[in-house]
Amino acid sequence: MRPNILLFGDSITQESFRSGGWGASLADAYSRKADVVLRGYGGYNTRWTLFLLHHLFPLGLTKPPVATTIFFGANDAALAGGTSERQHVPVEEYKENLRKIVRHLKECSPTMLIVLITPPPMDEEGRMEYARETYGEKAMTLPERTNETTGVYAKGCVELARELGVRSINLWSKMQETDGWQKKYLRDGLHLTAEGNAVVFEEVVKVFKEAWLDASEMPYDFPHHSEIDGKNPEKAFQQKCL
Amino acid sequence: MRPNILLFGDSITQESFRSGGWGASLADAYSRKADVVLRGYGGYNTRWTLFLLHHLFPLGLTKPPVATTIFFGANDAALAGGTSERQHVPVEEYKENLRKIVRHLKECSPTMLIVLITPPPMDEEGRMEYARETYGEKAMTLPERTNETTGVYAKGCVELARELGVRSINLWSKMQETDGWQKKYLRDGLHLTAEGNAVVFEEVVKVFKEAWLDASEMPYDFPHHSEIDGKNPEKAFQQKCL
Repeated sequence: MRPNILLFGDSITQESFRSGGWGASLADAYSRKADVVLRGYGGYNTRWTLFLLHHLFPLGLTKPPVATTIFFGANDAALAGGTSERQHVPVEEYKENLRKIVRHLKECSPTMLIVLITPPPMDEEGRMEYARETYGEKAMTLPERTNETTGVYAKGCVELARELGVRSINLWSKMQETDGWQKKYLRDGLHLTAEGNAVVFEEVVKVFKEAWLDASEMPYDFPHHSEIDGKNPEKAFQQKCL
Repeated sequence: MRPNILLFGDSITQESFRSGGWGASLADAYSRKADVVLRGYGGYNTRWTLFLLHHLFPLGLTKPPVATTIFFGANDAALAGGTSERQHVPVEEYKENLRKIVRHLKECSPTMLIVLITPPPMDEEGRMEYARETYGEKAMTLPERTNETTGVYAKGCVELARELGVRSINLWSKMQETDGWQKKYLRDGLHLTAEGNAVVFEEVVKVFKEAWLDASEMPYDFPHHSEIDGKNPEKAFQQKCL
């Protein structure tokens, strides 16, 4: 009955239902109005994601999502030659993969609201600190990702969105507008703190509102309890349930 | 593809995707394994809920939930004659309504794991404080709910679960085992704090595990990224996607 909003992405999406997470906040904001469906795949890059595409979004769905966020790039941007090389995807292929994803979603539903989200910025120092805390002497000594490289992917993502006529959120730029973004928004140089999650939530809600997917203007699935007459409850349910 | 876990209840369910909420924690715990579907109706009692039943759980669903939590009673237990009388449902009718819900769900799916959750305990003093803070001089001077009465509903809920052979969580008793439960678990005498939410999450997970719906034993929907060979990704996806 309710429309679905689907969150498609890597670990930053998969983790988004942890305490203070942007996905859970969306589910709360749209509660009784839309269902938020979590399709986050930690560690995935866009190349691997293509294997899932037709399974997650089969053509001919009777009820495709009304909106989908596509939030990849943090893994694609892992450096070739670094310790996370396995996840690296060249930026041109990253853009091409995103293009395939968007095209497929448009084929699933021409009216679907598609929002491309760039990877967040990357704090190299914070990432090294995290590696030392986690792996001690075995920790990497060279960065596996850099903020500059991640920025190239973010730019590619935004350019592609413009080219395809879909909305985008430049999280990489947005977060860096705030002083101290490195610790404020990132907990290990790469993944989001609660405050970082709040930024994603606000940006997604803003884009959804601009596209008229505004929770405050969407109807409740069933009457609000204040509309129910204790002595004559049937009346409130007449239109939708009887 | 993934099984659904449905959370059916009143405001304590509807709010469960706020920061630290038990619903969001479940969605996180079962991420990539099951979808947690939120069907919380703030202010609803079991009488009003019956109007929704066939709409939320139509017979003949191709994919009924594998598990459903039924979490009502806090509103039914509002005192007749109090300021929330409109929501009051006599305890015998409350049990009868729960019985109708359980029977309908069993008809939807004989294998569905059904978990009845009692209302949490009620802190009369905390509720009055909240009313004074919110409404000032216009606040109620007599309690609209009492812990003793809510306990009668909790007892009825547990008895019914035993009679119908479904699982139950006696939240009313469980929470009162901890000293200072009034402020520790309840934020306004009625709704849950983050710590109160954590109790519900732990209890639900425990019951789910006992019923073999254990996230740690459920398969990922698609390969974990560590199983993907960067040079030959097709291999990991062969079984499920190709």
